[in-house]
Amino acid sequence: MSKRAVVLLSGGLDSATTLAVARSEGYDCYALSFDYGQRHGAELDAARAVAMQLGAREHRVLQLGLAQFGGSALTDRSLAVPEQASEGIPITYVPARNTVMLSLALAWAEVLAADAIYLGVNAVDYSGYPDCRPEYIEAFERMANLATKRAVEGQPLRIAAPLLRLSKAEIIRLGMELGVDYGLTVSCYQADADGAACGRCDSCRLRRQGFVDAGVSDPTRYRK
Amino acid sequence: MSKRAVVLLSGGLDSATTLAVARSEGYDCYALSFDYGQRHGAELDAARAVAMQLGAREHRVLQLGLAQFGGSALTDRSLAVPEQASEGIPITYVPARNTVMLSLALAWAEVLAADAIYLGVNAVDYSGYPDCRPEYIEAFERMANLATKRAVEGQPLRIAAPLLRLSKAEIIRLGMELGVDYGLTVSCYQADADGAACGRCDSCRLRRQGFVDAGVSDPTRYRK
Repeated sequence: MSKRAVVLLSGGLDSATTLAVARSEGYDCYALSFDYGQRHGAELDAARAVAMQLGAREHRVLQLGLAQFGGSALTDRSLAVPEQASEGIPITYVPARNTVMLSLALAWAEVLAADAIYLGVNAVDYSGYPDCRPEYIEAFERMANLATKRAVEGQPLRIAAPLLRLSKAEIIRLGMELGVDYGLTVSCYQADADGAACGRCDSCRLRRQGFVDAGVSDPTRYRK
Repeated sequence: MSKRAVVLLSGGLDSATTLAVARSEGYDCYALSFDYGQRHGAELDAARAVAMQLGAREHRVLQLGLAQFGGSALTDRSLAVPEQASEGIPITYVPARNTVMLSLALAWAEVLAADAIYLGVNAVDYSGYPDCRPEYIEAFERMANLATKRAVEGQPLRIAAPLLRLSKAEIIRLGMELGVDYGLTVSCYQADADGAACGRCDSCRLRRQGFVDAGVSDPTRYRK
Protein backbone atom coordinates (compact mmCIF):
# COMPACT_ATOMS: atom_id res chain seq x y z
CA MET A 1 0.00 0.00 0.00
CA SER A 2 1.32 3.45 -0.83
CA LYS A 3 1.76 5.80 2.08
CA ARG A 4 -1.06 8.10 3.00
CA ALA A 5 -1.36 11.58 4.46
CA VAL A 6 -4.30 13.67 5.63
CA VAL A 7 -3.89 17.28 4.44
CA LEU A 8 -5.79 20.18 6.02
CA LEU A 9 -7.06 22.22 3.09
CA SER A 10 -8.70 25.61 3.60
CA GLY A 11 -8.71 26.73 -0.01
CA GLY A 12 -6.08 29.37 0.68
CA LEU A 13 -2.60 29.81 -0.73
CA ASP A 14 -0.72 28.15 2.14
CA SER A 15 -2.78 24.98 2.36
CA ALA A 16 -2.75 24.52 -1.43
CA THR A 17 1.05 24.72 -1.37
CA THR A 18 1.10 22.25 1.51
CA LEU A 19 -0.97 19.74 -0.46
CA ALA A 20 1.48 20.07 -3.37
CA VAL A 21 4.40 19.45 -0.98
CA ALA A 22 2.76 16.32 0.47
CA ARG A 23 2.19 14.98 -3.07
CA SER A 24 5.81 15.75 -4.02
CA GLU A 25 6.94 13.75 -0.98
CA GLY A 26 5.16 10.67 -2.33
CA TYR A 27 1.94 10.62 -0.35
CA ASP A 28 -1.54 9.67 -1.43
CA CYS A 29 -3.37 12.69 -0.08
CA TYR A 30 -6.72 12.81 1.73
CA ALA A 31 -7.79 16.45 1.90
CA LEU A 32 -9.93 17.63 4.81
CA SER A 33 -11.80 20.95 4.93
CA PHE A 34 -14.13 22.39 7.54
CA ASP A 35 -17.34 24.27 7.31
CA TYR A 36 -17.11 26.03 10.66
CA GLY A 37 -19.36 28.98 9.94
CA GLN A 38 -17.00 30.98 7.72
CA ARG A 39 -18.52 34.18 6.42
CA HIS A 40 -18.45 32.95 2.85
CA GLY A 41 -18.51 29.71 0.88
CA ALA A 42 -15.86 30.79 -1.64
CA GLU A 43 -13.10 29.22 0.47
CA LEU A 44 -14.76 25.79 0.37
CA ASP A 45 -15.33 26.07 -3.40
CA ALA A 46 -11.64 26.91 -3.73
CA ALA A 47 -10.70 23.90 -1.57
CA ARG A 48 -12.68 21.60 -3.88
CA ALA A 49 -11.00 23.01 -6.98
CA VAL A 50 -7.53 22.80 -5.44
CA ALA A 51 -8.05 19.21 -4.26
CA MET A 52 -8.93 18.21 -7.84
CA GLN A 53 -6.12 20.20 -9.49
CA LEU A 54 -3.48 18.71 -7.19
CA GLY A 55 -4.70 15.12 -7.38
CA ALA A 56 -6.02 14.42 -3.88
CA ARG A 57 -7.42 10.89 -3.50
CA GLU A 58 -10.42 12.14 -1.54
CA HIS A 59 -11.72 15.44 -0.25
CA ARG A 60 -14.11 15.68 2.68
CA VAL A 61 -15.80 18.72 4.18
CA LEU A 62 -16.79 18.34 7.84
CA GLN A 63 -19.46 20.51 9.43
CA LEU A 64 -18.16 22.00 12.64
CA GLY A 65 -20.25 24.13 15.00
CA LEU A 66 -17.42 26.39 16.26
CA ALA A 67 -19.47 29.49 15.48
CA GLN A 68 -21.77 28.72 18.41
CA PHE A 69 -18.85 29.31 20.77
CA GLY A 70 -18.27 32.81 19.31
CA GLY A 71 -15.12 34.79 20.03
CA SER A 72 -13.73 35.47 16.54
CA ALA A 73 -14.38 37.95 13.75
CA LEU A 74 -14.17 35.03 11.29
CA THR A 75 -17.18 33.24 12.76
CA ASP A 76 -18.97 35.87 14.87
CA ARG A 77 -20.94 38.17 12.61
CA SER A 78 -21.17 40.84 15.31
CA LEU A 79 -17.40 41.54 15.09
CA ALA A 80 -15.88 43.46 12.16
CA VAL A 81 -12.94 42.07 10.17
CA PRO A 82 -10.07 44.52 10.79
CA GLU A 83 -8.48 46.23 7.80
CA GLN A 84 -5.40 47.52 9.63
CA ALA A 85 -2.51 45.49 11.02
CA SER A 86 -2.68 45.51 14.83
CA GLU A 87 -0.43 44.53 17.73
CA GLY A 88 -0.78 41.21 19.56
CA ILE A 89 -3.11 38.34 18.73
CA PRO A 90 -5.53 39.29 15.95
CA ILE A 91 -9.31 39.29 16.46
CA THR A 92 -9.58 36.90 13.49
CA TYR A 93 -8.13 34.19 15.76
CA VAL A 94 -10.61 31.29 16.07
CA PRO A 95 -10.47 29.61 19.52
CA ALA A 96 -8.38 26.46 19.41
CA ARG A 97 -8.91 26.18 15.67
CA ASN A 98 -5.75 24.30 14.72
CA THR A 99 -6.19 21.98 17.69
CA VAL A 100 -9.75 21.15 16.67
CA MET A 101 -8.85 20.64 13.01
CA LEU A 102 -5.76 18.55 13.78
CA SER A 103 -7.78 16.39 16.17
CA LEU A 104 -10.37 15.61 13.51
CA ALA A 105 -7.57 14.97 11.02
CA LEU A 106 -6.11 12.57 13.59
CA ALA A 107 -9.38 10.63 13.73
CA TRP A 108 -9.42 10.25 9.94
CA ALA A 109 -5.69 9.47 9.85
CA GLU A 110 -6.16 6.58 12.22
CA VAL A 111 -9.00 5.08 10.17
CA LEU A 112 -6.95 5.51 6.95
CA ALA A 113 -3.78 4.15 8.59
CA ALA A 114 -2.08 7.36 7.46
CA ASP A 115 1.51 8.15 8.47
CA ALA A 116 1.29 11.93 8.45
CA ILE A 117 -0.95 14.96 8.78
CA TYR A 118 0.10 18.01 6.77
CA LEU A 119 -0.96 21.53 7.63
CA GLY A 120 -0.01 24.87 6.20
CA VAL A 121 0.76 26.89 9.31
CA ASN A 122 3.40 29.51 9.06
CA ALA A 123 5.27 31.07 11.97
CA VAL A 124 6.70 34.00 9.99
CA ASP A 125 3.67 35.83 8.66
CA TYR A 126 1.21 34.72 11.35
CA SER A 127 3.29 34.93 14.50
CA GLY A 128 0.31 36.36 16.40
CA TYR A 129 -1.41 32.94 16.48
CA PRO A 130 -0.15 30.73 19.33
CA ASP A 131 -1.15 27.54 17.50
CA CYS A 132 1.11 28.32 14.52
CA ARG A 133 4.37 28.05 16.50
CA PRO A 134 6.86 25.16 16.20
CA GLU A 135 6.60 24.29 19.92
CA TYR A 136 2.83 23.92 19.54
CA ILE A 137 3.17 21.60 16.53
CA GLU A 138 5.71 19.46 18.39
CA ALA A 139 3.45 19.22 21.45
CA PHE A 140 0.50 18.18 19.28
CA GLU A 141 2.57 15.47 17.61
CA ARG A 142 3.72 14.14 20.97
CA MET A 143 0.14 14.05 22.28
CA ALA A 144 -1.14 12.40 19.08
CA ASN A 145 1.40 9.63 19.42
CA LEU A 146 0.02 8.80 22.87
CA ALA A 147 -3.61 9.07 21.76
CA THR A 148 -4.27 6.46 19.13
CA LYS A 149 -4.36 2.70 18.85
CA ARG A 150 -2.20 2.84 15.72
CA ALA A 151 0.56 4.91 17.36
CA VAL A 152 0.52 2.80 20.52
CA GLU A 153 0.90 -0.30 18.36
CA GLY A 154 4.13 1.11 16.89
CA GLN A 155 3.10 3.19 13.86
CA PRO A 156 3.92 6.76 14.80
CA LEU A 157 2.26 9.72 13.14
CA ARG A 158 4.14 12.76 11.91
CA ILE A 159 2.65 16.25 12.00
CA ALA A 160 4.21 17.98 8.99
CA ALA A 161 4.20 21.76 8.71
CA PRO A 162 6.46 22.28 5.69
CA LEU A 163 5.79 26.03 5.44
CA LEU A 164 6.50 26.76 9.09
CA ARG A 165 9.63 28.81 8.58
CA LEU A 166 9.06 30.10 5.02
CA SER A 167 8.16 33.66 4.10
CA LYS A 168 5.08 34.23 1.96
CA ALA A 169 7.33 34.87 -1.06
CA GLU A 170 9.19 31.59 -0.48
CA ILE A 171 5.88 29.73 -0.19
CA ILE A 172 4.71 31.18 -3.52
CA ARG A 173 7.97 30.27 -5.29
CA LEU A 174 7.79 26.71 -3.88
CA GLY A 175 4.18 26.31 -4.99
CA MET A 176 4.96 27.60 -8.50
CA GLU A 177 7.71 24.97 -8.82
CA LEU A 178 5.24 22.27 -7.74
CA GLY A 179 2.54 23.36 -10.17
CA VAL A 180 0.02 25.02 -7.86
CA ASP A 181 -2.54 27.14 -9.72
CA TYR A 182 -2.86 30.07 -7.32
CA GLY A 183 -5.70 31.46 -9.40
CA LEU A 184 -7.88 28.73 -7.79
CA THR A 185 -7.07 29.72 -4.22
CA VAL A 186 -8.87 32.27 -2.03
CA SER A 187 -7.12 33.92 0.93
CA CYS A 188 -9.40 36.87 1.65
CA TYR A 189 -11.25 36.93 4.99
CA GLN A 190 -14.22 38.58 3.27
CA ALA A 191 -14.18 37.29 -0.32
CA ASP A 192 -17.47 37.64 -2.18
CA ALA A 193 -19.50 34.65 -3.39
CA ASP A 194 -17.44 34.43 -6.60
CA GLY A 195 -14.16 34.39 -4.68
CA ALA A 196 -13.14 37.97 -5.54
CA ALA A 197 -10.92 39.36 -2.78
CA CYS A 198 -11.29 42.64 -0.91
CA GLY A 199 -7.60 43.56 -1.22
CA ARG A 200 -7.66 45.29 2.17
CA CYS A 201 -7.83 42.72 5.02
CA ASP A 202 -4.71 41.32 6.74
CA SER A 203 -4.79 38.18 4.64
CA CYS A 204 -5.10 40.07 1.32
CA ARG A 205 -2.25 42.42 2.27
CA LEU A 206 0.07 39.52 3.15
CA ARG A 207 -0.78 37.69 -0.06
CA ARG A 208 -0.36 40.73 -2.29
CA GLN A 209 3.02 41.57 -0.75
CA GLY A 210 4.06 37.92 -1.12
CA PHE A 211 3.52 37.99 -4.89
CA VAL A 212 5.39 41.29 -5.13
CA ASP A 213 8.33 39.91 -3.10
CA ALA A 214 8.36 36.67 -5.09
CA GLY A 215 8.44 38.64 -8.35
CA VAL A 216 5.47 36.63 -9.64
CA SER A 217 2.33 38.13 -11.14
CA ASP A 218 -0.66 37.86 -8.79
CA PRO A 219 -3.55 35.83 -10.29
CA THR A 220 -5.93 36.89 -7.49
CA ARG A 221 -9.18 38.54 -8.61
CA TYR A 222 -9.75 41.68 -6.56
CA ARG A 223 -13.07 43.48 -6.34
CA LYS A 224 -13.34 46.74 -8.28
CA MET B 1 -16.11 36.20 38.64
CA SER B 2 -16.36 32.68 40.00
CA LYS B 3 -14.08 30.13 38.40
CA ARG B 4 -15.36 28.13 35.47
CA ALA B 5 -14.81 24.63 34.13
CA VAL B 6 -15.94 22.85 30.99
CA VAL B 7 -17.04 19.29 31.83
CA LEU B 8 -17.32 16.56 29.19
CA LEU B 9 -20.63 14.85 29.90
CA SER B 10 -21.65 11.66 28.11
CA GLY B 11 -24.63 10.77 30.27
CA GLY B 12 -22.79 7.79 31.74
CA LEU B 13 -21.81 7.01 35.31
CA ASP B 14 -18.22 8.27 35.10
CA SER B 15 -18.91 11.66 33.54
CA ALA B 16 -21.83 12.32 35.93
CA THR B 17 -19.48 11.66 38.86
CA THR B 18 -16.89 13.95 37.26
CA LEU B 19 -19.40 16.79 37.01
CA ALA B 20 -20.23 16.32 40.70
CA VAL B 21 -16.50 16.46 41.56
CA ALA B 22 -16.01 19.67 39.55
CA ARG B 23 -18.96 21.28 41.37
CA SER B 24 -17.59 20.14 44.75
CA GLU B 25 -14.27 21.81 43.87
CA GLY B 26 -16.04 25.15 43.51
CA TYR B 27 -16.45 25.48 39.74
CA ASP B 28 -19.31 26.89 37.77
CA CYS B 29 -19.72 24.03 35.30
CA TYR B 30 -20.36 24.21 31.55
CA ALA B 31 -21.32 20.73 30.41
CA LEU B 32 -20.49 19.65 26.86
CA SER B 33 -21.94 16.58 25.12
CA PHE B 34 -21.49 15.29 21.59
CA ASP B 35 -23.87 13.83 19.12
CA TYR B 36 -21.32 11.85 17.12
CA GLY B 37 -23.58 9.26 15.62
CA GLN B 38 -24.15 7.11 18.71
CA ARG B 39 -26.47 4.20 18.15
CA HIS B 40 -29.09 5.61 20.49
CA GLY B 41 -30.26 8.96 21.85
CA ALA B 42 -30.75 7.69 25.43
CA GLU B 43 -27.22 8.80 26.36
CA LEU B 44 -27.90 12.40 25.34
CA ASP B 45 -31.24 12.41 27.20
CA ALA B 46 -29.34 11.16 30.25
CA ALA B 47 -26.70 13.88 29.83
CA ARG B 48 -29.43 16.56 29.84
CA ALA B 49 -31.03 15.13 32.99
CA VAL B 50 -27.67 14.82 34.78
CA ALA B 51 -26.64 18.39 33.85
CA MET B 52 -29.86 19.69 35.44
CA GLN B 53 -29.67 17.49 38.53
CA LEU B 54 -26.09 18.49 39.27
CA GLY B 55 -26.54 22.22 38.65
CA ALA B 56 -24.51 22.85 35.50
CA ARG B 57 -24.65 26.51 34.36
CA GLU B 58 -25.09 25.52 30.73
CA HIS B 59 -25.29 22.32 28.72
CA ARG B 60 -24.47 22.21 25.01
CA VAL B 61 -24.70 19.32 22.58
CA LEU B 62 -22.38 19.63 19.57
CA GLN B 63 -23.03 17.70 16.38
CA LEU B 64 -19.90 15.88 15.29
CA GLY B 65 -19.58 13.88 12.09
CA LEU B 66 -17.15 11.22 13.38
CA ALA B 67 -19.41 8.46 12.07
CA GLN B 68 -18.42 9.33 8.51
CA PHE B 69 -14.85 8.25 9.29
CA GLY B 70 -16.07 4.81 10.46
CA GLY B 71 -13.82 2.44 12.38
CA SER B 72 -15.78 1.78 15.57
CA ALA B 73 -18.68 -0.42 16.66
CA LEU B 74 -20.10 2.60 18.51
CA THR B 75 -20.57 4.65 15.36
CA ASP B 76 -20.34 2.15 12.50
CA ARG B 77 -23.60 0.25 12.19
CA SER B 78 -21.96 -2.52 10.19
CA LEU B 79 -19.91 -3.67 13.23
CA ALA B 80 -21.51 -5.58 16.10
CA VAL B 81 -21.08 -4.48 19.72
CA PRO B 82 -19.15 -7.29 21.43
CA GLU B 83 -20.74 -9.00 24.43
CA GLN B 84 -17.57 -10.76 25.63
CA ALA B 85 -14.48 -9.18 27.15
CA SER B 86 -11.61 -9.39 24.66
CA GLU B 87 -7.85 -8.91 24.65
CA GLY B 88 -6.22 -5.69 23.48
CA ILE B 89 -7.94 -2.52 22.36
CA PRO B 90 -11.73 -2.99 22.11
CA ILE B 91 -13.63 -2.55 18.85
CA THR B 92 -15.82 0.02 20.64
CA TYR B 93 -12.82 2.40 20.52
CA VAL B 94 -13.73 5.55 18.55
CA PRO B 95 -10.74 6.99 16.62
CA ALA B 96 -9.17 9.87 18.52
CA ARG B 97 -12.40 10.43 20.43
CA ASN B 98 -10.99 11.98 23.60
CA THR B 99 -8.65 14.16 21.55
CA VAL B 100 -11.52 15.47 19.43
CA MET B 101 -13.78 16.07 22.45
CA LEU B 102 -11.04 17.72 24.52
CA SER B 103 -10.15 19.96 21.57
CA LEU B 104 -13.70 21.21 21.23
CA ALA B 105 -13.87 21.65 25.02
CA LEU B 106 -10.68 23.69 24.70
CA ALA B 107 -12.33 26.02 22.17
CA TRP B 108 -15.28 26.61 24.51
CA ALA B 109 -12.98 26.93 27.54
CA GLU B 110 -11.06 29.72 25.87
CA VAL B 111 -14.21 31.66 25.00
CA LEU B 112 -15.55 31.17 28.57
CA ALA B 113 -12.17 32.05 30.13
CA ALA B 114 -12.40 28.73 31.98
CA ASP B 115 -9.51 27.46 34.11
CA ALA B 116 -10.12 23.75 33.73
CA ILE B 117 -11.59 20.99 31.59
CA TYR B 118 -12.88 17.96 33.47
CA LEU B 119 -13.28 14.55 31.90
CA GLY B 120 -14.23 11.20 33.34
CA VAL B 121 -11.55 8.93 31.92
CA ASN B 122 -10.46 6.02 33.98
CA ALA B 123 -7.23 4.09 33.57
CA VAL B 124 -8.25 1.12 35.72
CA ASP B 125 -11.36 -0.25 34.08
CA TYR B 126 -10.62 1.01 30.55
CA SER B 127 -6.92 0.34 30.22
CA GLY B 128 -7.44 -0.80 26.62
CA TYR B 129 -8.02 2.78 25.41
CA PRO B 130 -4.76 4.66 24.76
CA ASP B 131 -6.41 8.04 25.30
CA CYS B 132 -7.45 7.17 28.86
CA ARG B 133 -3.89 6.94 30.20
CA PRO B 134 -2.25 9.51 32.52
CA GLU B 135 0.60 10.20 30.06
CA TYR B 136 -1.93 11.04 27.36
CA ILE B 137 -3.81 13.48 29.64
CA GLU B 138 -0.54 15.18 30.59
CA ALA B 139 0.51 15.50 26.94
CA PHE B 140 -2.86 17.01 26.02
CA GLU B 141 -2.58 19.55 28.85
CA ARG B 142 0.91 20.54 27.75
CA MET B 143 -0.24 20.98 24.13
CA ALA B 144 -3.32 22.95 25.21
CA ASN B 145 -1.17 25.38 27.16
CA LEU B 146 0.79 26.15 23.98
CA ALA B 147 -2.33 26.39 21.81
CA THR B 148 -4.49 29.21 23.09
CA LYS B 149 -4.31 32.95 23.41
CA ARG B 150 -5.48 32.74 27.03
CA ALA B 151 -2.75 30.27 28.06
CA VAL B 152 -0.04 32.17 26.19
CA GLU B 153 -1.12 35.33 28.01
CA GLY B 154 -0.49 33.65 31.37
CA GLN B 155 -3.73 31.88 32.33
CA PRO B 156 -2.92 28.18 32.16
CA LEU B 157 -5.59 25.55 31.71
CA ARG B 158 -5.76 22.38 33.77
CA ILE B 159 -7.03 19.09 32.34
CA ALA B 160 -8.63 17.37 35.32
CA ALA B 161 -9.31 13.64 35.28
CA PRO B 162 -10.36 13.03 38.88
CA LEU B 163 -11.42 9.40 38.29
CA LEU B 164 -8.22 8.39 36.55
CA ARG B 165 -6.95 6.01 39.21
CA LEU B 166 -10.24 4.99 40.87
CA SER B 167 -11.95 1.63 40.54
CA LYS B 168 -15.58 1.55 39.40
CA ALA B 169 -16.65 0.84 42.99
CA GLU B 170 -14.65 3.83 44.29
CA ILE B 171 -16.23 6.06 41.62
CA ILE B 172 -19.72 4.95 42.68
CA ARG B 173 -19.01 5.57 46.37
CA LEU B 174 -17.59 9.03 45.59
CA GLY B 175 -20.62 9.93 43.47
CA MET B 176 -23.06 8.76 46.17
CA GLU B 177 -21.31 11.06 48.68
CA LEU B 178 -21.63 13.96 46.23
CA GLY B 179 -25.33 13.36 45.55
CA VAL B 180 -25.23 11.86 42.04
CA ASP B 181 -28.51 10.19 41.06
CA TYR B 182 -27.18 7.18 39.15
CA GLY B 183 -30.71 6.27 38.14
CA LEU B 184 -30.45 9.12 35.60
CA THR B 185 -27.27 7.84 33.96
CA VAL B 186 -26.96 5.42 31.04
CA SER B 187 -23.77 3.40 30.47
CA CYS B 188 -24.96 0.70 28.08
CA TYR B 189 -23.47 0.66 24.56
CA GLN B 190 -26.82 -0.51 23.22
CA ALA B 191 -29.46 0.97 25.52
CA ASP B 192 -32.97 1.15 24.09
CA ALA B 193 -34.78 4.43 23.42
CA ASP B 194 -36.02 4.59 27.03
CA GLY B 195 -32.53 4.11 28.41
CA ALA B 196 -33.01 0.49 29.53
CA ALA B 197 -29.66 -1.31 29.48
CA CYS B 198 -28.81 -4.65 27.82
CA GLY B 199 -26.92 -5.99 30.85
CA ARG B 200 -24.48 -7.89 28.61
CA CYS B 201 -22.06 -5.48 26.88
CA ASP B 202 -18.63 -4.57 28.35
CA SER B 203 -19.95 -1.34 29.76
CA CYS B 204 -22.97 -2.98 31.47
CA ARG B 205 -20.77 -5.69 32.96
CA LEU B 206 -18.33 -3.16 34.43
CA ARG B 207 -21.14 -1.05 35.85
CA ARG B 208 -22.99 -3.98 37.37
CA GLN B 209 -19.83 -5.30 39.02
CA GLY B 210 -19.04 -1.79 40.30
CA PHE B 211 -22.34 -1.57 42.19
CA VAL B 212 -21.79 -5.06 43.60
CA ASP B 213 -18.25 -4.16 44.74
CA ALA B 214 -19.40 -0.83 46.20
CA GLY B 215 -22.14 -2.60 48.17
CA VAL B 216 -24.70 -0.18 46.74
CA SER B 217 -27.97 -1.19 45.13
CA ASP B 218 -27.92 -0.71 41.33
CA PRO B 219 -30.62 1.73 40.10
CA THR B 220 -30.00 0.79 36.44
CA ARG B 221 -33.04 -0.35 34.49
CA TYR B 222 -32.17 -3.53 32.61
CA ARG B 223 -34.24 -4.93 29.76
CA LYS B 224 -36.30 -8.03 30.61
